[in-house]
Amino acid sequence: MPETMQTTALSDGTFELACELIARASVTPEDAGCQRLMMQRLETLGFRCTPLPFGDTENFWAEWGSEGPLLVFAGHTDVVPPGPLNEWESDPYLPTVRDGHLYGRGAADMKGSLAAMVTACESFLRNCEEDNRDPRGRIGFLITSDEEGPAINGTVRVMEWLNEHKIDIDYCVVGEPSSAEVLGDTIKNGRRGSLNGAVKLLGRQGHVAYPQHADNPLHRALPALQELVTRQWDEGNEYFPATSFQITNFHSGTGVTNVIPGHAELLINFRFSTEQTAEGLQTAVEAILEKHAVNAEIQWNLSGNPFITGEGALTEACRAAVRAVDGVETALSTSGGTSDGRFIAPYGAQLVELGPINASIHRVNERVKVDDLAKLSTMYQGILTRLL
Amino acid sequence: MPETMQTTALSDGTFELACELIARASVTPEDAGCQRLMMQRLETLGFRCTPLPFGDTENFWAEWGSEGPLLVFAGHTDVVPPGPLNEWESDPYLPTVRDGHLYGRGAADMKGSLAAMVTACESFLRNCEEDNRDPRGRIGFLITSDEEGPAINGTVRVMEWLNEHKIDIDYCVVGEPSSAEVLGDTIKNGRRGSLNGAVKLLGRQGHVAYPQHADNPLHRALPALQELVTRQWDEGNEYFPATSFQITNFHSGTGVTNVIPGHAELLINFRFSTEQTAEGLQTAVEAILEKHAVNAEIQWNLSGNPFITGEGALTEACRAAVRAVDGVETALSTSGGTSDGRFIAPYGAQLVELGPINASIHRVNERVKVDDLAKLSTMYQGILTRLL
Ligand SMILES: [Zn+2]
Ligand SMILES: [Zn+2]
Repeated sequence: MPETMQTTALSDGTFELACELIARASVTPEDAGCQRLMMQRLETLGFRCTPLPFGDTENFWAEWGSEGPLLVFAGHTDVVPPGPLNEWESDPYLPTVRDGHLYGRGAADMKGSLAAMVTACESFLRNCEEDNRDPRGRIGFLITSDEEGPAINGTVRVMEWLNEHKIDIDYCVVGEPSSAEVLGDTIKNGRRGSLNGAVKLLGRQGHVAYPQHADNPLHRALPALQELVTRQWDEGNEYFPATSFQITNFHSGTGVTNVIPGHAELLINFRFSTEQTAEGLQTAVEAILEKHAVNAEIQWNLSGNPFITGEGALTEACRAAVRAVDGVETALSTSGGTSDGRFIAPYGAQLVELGPINASIHRVNERVKVDDLAKLSTMYQGILTRLL
Repeated sequence: MPETMQTTALSDGTFELACELIARASVTPEDAGCQRLMMQRLETLGFRCTPLPFGDTENFWAEWGSEGPLLVFAGHTDVVPPGPLNEWESDPYLPTVRDGHLYGRGAADMKGSLAAMVTACESFLRNCEEDNRDPRGRIGFLITSDEEGPAINGTVRVMEWLNEHKIDIDYCVVGEPSSAEVLGDTIKNGRRGSLNGAVKLLGRQGHVAYPQHADNPLHRALPALQELVTRQWDEGNEYFPATSFQITNFHSGTGVTNVIPGHAELLINFRFSTEQTAEGLQTAVEAILEKHAVNAEIQWNLSGNPFITGEGALTEACRAAVRAVDGVETALSTSGGTSDGRFIAPYGAQLVELGPINASIHRVNERVKVDDLAKLSTMYQGILTRLL
């Protein structure tokens, strides 16, 4: 009788570890013991673990080996809140199998990935030992409990710490759920930049019956907003789609019908390619507002610069590892939101994101295919084997 | 020793009655006994008084005489709330004289006018008796306690009642504070119409990183809004300034920076001349939105149609009465907000608004010049004398 994938999933330990992590209700910035559990497993393998708490955030760094290129698994133990509990078909913190899926908050984003990273290392190091060969490099783990939150005391701070300790990452695999339809069909090899602006439009309040004594900031801003909205910022490039501009929030007036408002508050967002810089976009927006004589104050907040990992050793290892597990051809993509990759890539690492199917993340009844847990572990192991 | 205006103010009873009314804290829709006090005074003169309460609102109708043209004094006993009490130099409901002004909530809008209307009738009827002449018509009072509020159960309902009872008004003097610099320098002989629209712009929500899957209603609406804002609706006419359009409120988004909003809510307002109709404006707005493919739902609310009283017997009597008291040349105006005149004029009356200086209305430290109380009474009396 052939061994089914299901039994594989149960036997390599990924499923069990994923369940143990899901059972810990670690809503940002809580870790709820997830990292201690991971560190115990890694220490058994010979990793040197360093807890790196900053503020309210738990982080750890773990390292195996002493020389050669450094391949790091990066990820987060925190999860987003469960949302409406009555819409969950089972308790979000009670890992439950139905129809071949493991349900629970964090199953796909990203406790399944964390479990697969740990078991991949276990298998890889056991295989090396059995094969009597030394890995050709080092393995690291960079884990935070504040990826879904403000992301101030998480990966950013750990990267600063690594930099101070002169630890340079060569390859980084982030466990974000990158897959669309089939496990491994998509890996992210970069992300667009994200720039937020909080715009305050200034005018002069007045009675609606006397518009000549007022200066309606809404009216004054319309031509400038129209120019911002219709402008073709760039056409993207081989890795990135075109830069996009969106007005995400617009608030003005107190609900009274006879008062012309004196100010308005907007939030704007750019998702931008490597054809742009944050400074360039800021300057362009300010110039357009000025051209149309709009009196505005803008608070800029750069959420992340664009980053890209071109075709190379890491993307090749990923493609081969995915193909070996389920015969899927992997597409590279830079679409979607931001991830903690934005804090790691600028230090010079090749970086990709490879993880489960993302259809259910941040929703009720979040789930991962039970089969995909062992498959993902095998893919991560394949990347280790090919690079180290 | 010549009689000073101050002594006149004290001796004709307008000042005292104004004080009695201000002392009654009648914030909309409260009347706090103001109308009973007025009715007592009017009954003494031979008026037939009819309380006309509707819903939460106190109103009364009073009529003197049985034939001839009907001249009505119209007004409201309710006041707007006092606002920040610590900014009042004296209690808003404790009538207080400082520097020749009577201070108190409602002093100018419009308890001073109500007092002057009553004392004007007292003087006019006493003079007629002394002169042994019968007035050439009837006098009415149309008083409500809901002018500053929703104005649903006030003047509108009383006009319906008058219409049912076949009582037609020939001339109407509303006591709204019409004066700018000097008592009587301005009378309102009409008002622009006011049309409100609650606009809901409909789009499709989505993640800001995937604008191709969303439809930002803010972006889509900009060209249509720009057209609405820049359009010259008309150039006004001999009585009215040009029609104006204002966006008074604009709300969209929940404060989250990574979500494209699915809808937006706007409030818009027209102040329109007799060159427009409410229906015409509504049709024009809807056509502009449709032309720009904006998906919108609009709730229209006609606050009042424009109305105008051309030069004639009433405006002439007002000009002469004002000139006789303080030598001022009166200007006719249709500017400013709406008043209950919008509910009376459509039935066919000639209607003007004549009252105190309006600089302090709806503000803290509302006031009326003590001298102006007796002067206003004399002006009202002059109008009675000239028309009846
Ligand atoms: Zn995640
Ligand atoms: Zn008023």
